[in-house]
Amino acid sequence: MSWMLTADAVPQLARGAAVLGTGGGGDPYIGALLAQQALAAHGPVTVVALDEVPDDGLVLTVAMMGAPTVMIEKLPSLDEVIAPVKALGTYLGRPVTHVACAEVGGVNSTIPVAAAAALGLPLVDADGMGRAFPELQMVLPTLYGVTASPLAFADEKGNIGVLQTVDNNWTERIARVACVEMGCSIMIAGFPMSGSQAREALVPGSLRHSLSIGAGIADARDTKSDPVSRTVDLLGGREFFAGKVVDVERGTTAGFARGRARIENALSTLTLSFQNEHLIAEANGQVLVTTPDLIIVLDHDSGEPITTEALRYGQRVRVIAAPSDPRWHSAEALAIVGPGYFGYDIPSHRFDGTAEIVAADGSIQICAAEVVA
Amino acid sequence: MSWMLTADAVPQLARGAAVLGTGGGGDPYIGALLAQQALAAHGPVTVVALDEVPDDGLVLTVAMMGAPTVMIEKLPSLDEVIAPVKALGTYLGRPVTHVACAEVGGVNSTIPVAAAAALGLPLVDADGMGRAFPELQMVLPTLYGVTASPLAFADEKGNIGVLQTVDNNWTERIARVACVEMGCSIMIAGFPMSGSQAREALVPGSLRHSLSIGAGIADARDTKSDPVSRTVDLLGGREFFAGKVVDVERGTTAGFARGRARIENALSTLTLSFQNEHLIAEANGQVLVTTPDLIIVLDHDSGEPITTEALRYGQRVRVIAAPSDPRWHSAEALAIVGPGYFGYDIPSHRFDGTAEIVAADGSIQICAAEVVA
Repeated sequence: MSWMLTADAVPQLARGAAVLGTGGGGDPYIGALLAQQALAAHGPVTVVALDEVPDDGLVLTVAMMGAPTVMIEKLPSLDEVIAPVKALGTYLGRPVTHVACAEVGGVNSTIPVAAAAALGLPLVDADGMGRAFPELQMVLPTLYGVTASPLAFADEKGNIGVLQTVDNNWTERIARVACVEMGCSIMIAGFPMSGSQAREALVPGSLRHSLSIGAGIADARDTKSDPVSRTVDLLGGREFFAGKVVDVERGTTAGFARGRARIENALSTLTLSFQNEHLIAEANGQVLVTTPDLIIVLDHDSGEPITTEALRYGQRVRVIAAPSDPRWHSAEALAIVGPGYFGYDIPSHRFDGTAEIVAADGSIQICAAEVVA
Repeated sequence: MSWMLTADAVPQLARGAAVLGTGGGGDPYIGALLAQQALAAHGPVTVVALDEVPDDGLVLTVAMMGAPTVMIEKLPSLDEVIAPVKALGTYLGRPVTHVACAEVGGVNSTIPVAAAAALGLPLVDADGMGRAFPELQMVLPTLYGVTASPLAFADEKGNIGVLQTVDNNWTERIARVACVEMGCSIMIAGFPMSGSQAREALVPGSLRHSLSIGAGIADARDTKSDPVSRTVDLLGGREFFAGKVVDVERGTTAGFARGRARIENALSTLTLSFQNEHLIAEANGQVLVTTPDLIIVLDHDSGEPITTEALRYGQRVRVIAAPSDPRWHSAEALAIVGPGYFGYDIPSHRFDGTAEIVAADGSIQICAAEVVA
């Protein structure tokens, strides 16, 4: 069941992960560079399925925390990537056995590859969200009572911290202010889990899934078919808008890239609101898709995923909705990742995949989801 | 050389320490309560002189970090006081042998008493400043190359962090933002030192000195002599202004209590600028005393020290200048605690104790210091 991840597969992994990252999780080009460097220096990484992790294993999630707008200009070194894992292993007083992804994203799926390569540890084919979310407590392990702390963080200057907090919100709050002070981009390692906890709490197969999406986009282009349709099929999603980016408001505040993008076609304007990740899609005064379901922006022709920090005026794009891991739709989960948490006075929607979304003339017919709350 | 500190001596210690705290370091009433509680529960604390600490001892400084304006409303528990010491001992992997004060102040001289009592450890008769300063890197150990980190912090909710930073400014920066996020008042333990490092870097005899000042004020009152004059004598200082507080501007910003107070008499107005501690005294457009020398506000008749957060309209006060530890006047030291560091475009002054300061008619004659930079 285990397989080797080599440098040549990394661009597909990063691209596919950026699709699932719903605009966040980091730039796939930068993410690929990081992992490829590490694999070149340390050799391929063994990827194991969740059911191969021993019950008494010690699994840590490894990630970049901060504003992707900043990370583009402040590439982490391999030393920075492994520093929090080492610090946490020392703090826990026992050896880390496996590295896992906290979320899926262009960088946050490849940082763990780099860490696993540099540390000589196996990487688990799984992640904590099945997508990307902006805050660290927004992982399925939180719903299973796994504590984020002890959590270690490190910056490129060599500063390191270890937090032991009373709940995962406090880990986020303290790590976030440290992150902002340290330059808005730090590496973190946390959520120490046994193998059995990881099996229960993580989303299985994220790396394979990302690879298949990334490879599918490349293959569709090579075979002159439509890469966006290929992605839609792999996600079980729906394309619900196509148009030109006409406006992007973006600010890096409190350690996040927050803003709104407007995408226009002849008949309608779609508005996407984001905090690192796309959270809400609206058009003509109607909510179409909301967090936790996936809102994905792809280049109109090439099908390349476009992260929120890379959105620019004039881009021709297509927008996809796809269902999240079903566990994100429980009431308990919506309390930590639903529209209300992010300050939107919008009921939680649930993408059902069946609705007609865009008529042939480009007009919005009905929303891409049923209202569930 | 060692002696026992008992609960009955604590009010004198806290009062004297609040005098040396130059307006900061915490409220002596609260500080005394904390230490008395701990001594009642755990028995007296052994105080040892610096030269009694073994060369291979492990000395930590223990302190409250934050805005004194907040601490008044958020008393730390004994659990909170000892949590960072325990966390740091675990992190360092060897037993802490002695507790010391980072600074002198109404709370920051008594918190270490409480910690020593609860942990059953000896307390060193010394501190890191010979006064109080608002930021954690502002201790003489910084000048001797002692690192603030590993430094542990804890709040009343049970959150704990350990920092390992590249320099003491980074310890301050990260701990400060964590402090603000955690409610503007946390307990810290750091600056791990061997006995020989402590002997070189700390100010000896701070507890004895504080006790003698505190007891002197009480004794002067009991014997109907002037407590302010008694304090001036013990400090080798000078009373340079007397008047009524007519205005206090105070804000709790970025984790500090910052502001200015105006004190008026028939002929002049004295302005004191503070950041937790008094930093600059000016009158009639002339700078009289600057950090690092001590600016101390005492109640006009009782001689009780008044902290910056306790300054109120209408208080009748007398203001004293006193020399700091001479090591604070080196160029290297002034770079971290001089007026320029705090944003004042004022040359560094040095209190020389000889100048005529206030004429009999209350007018300011000359400044209480020579300009040294």
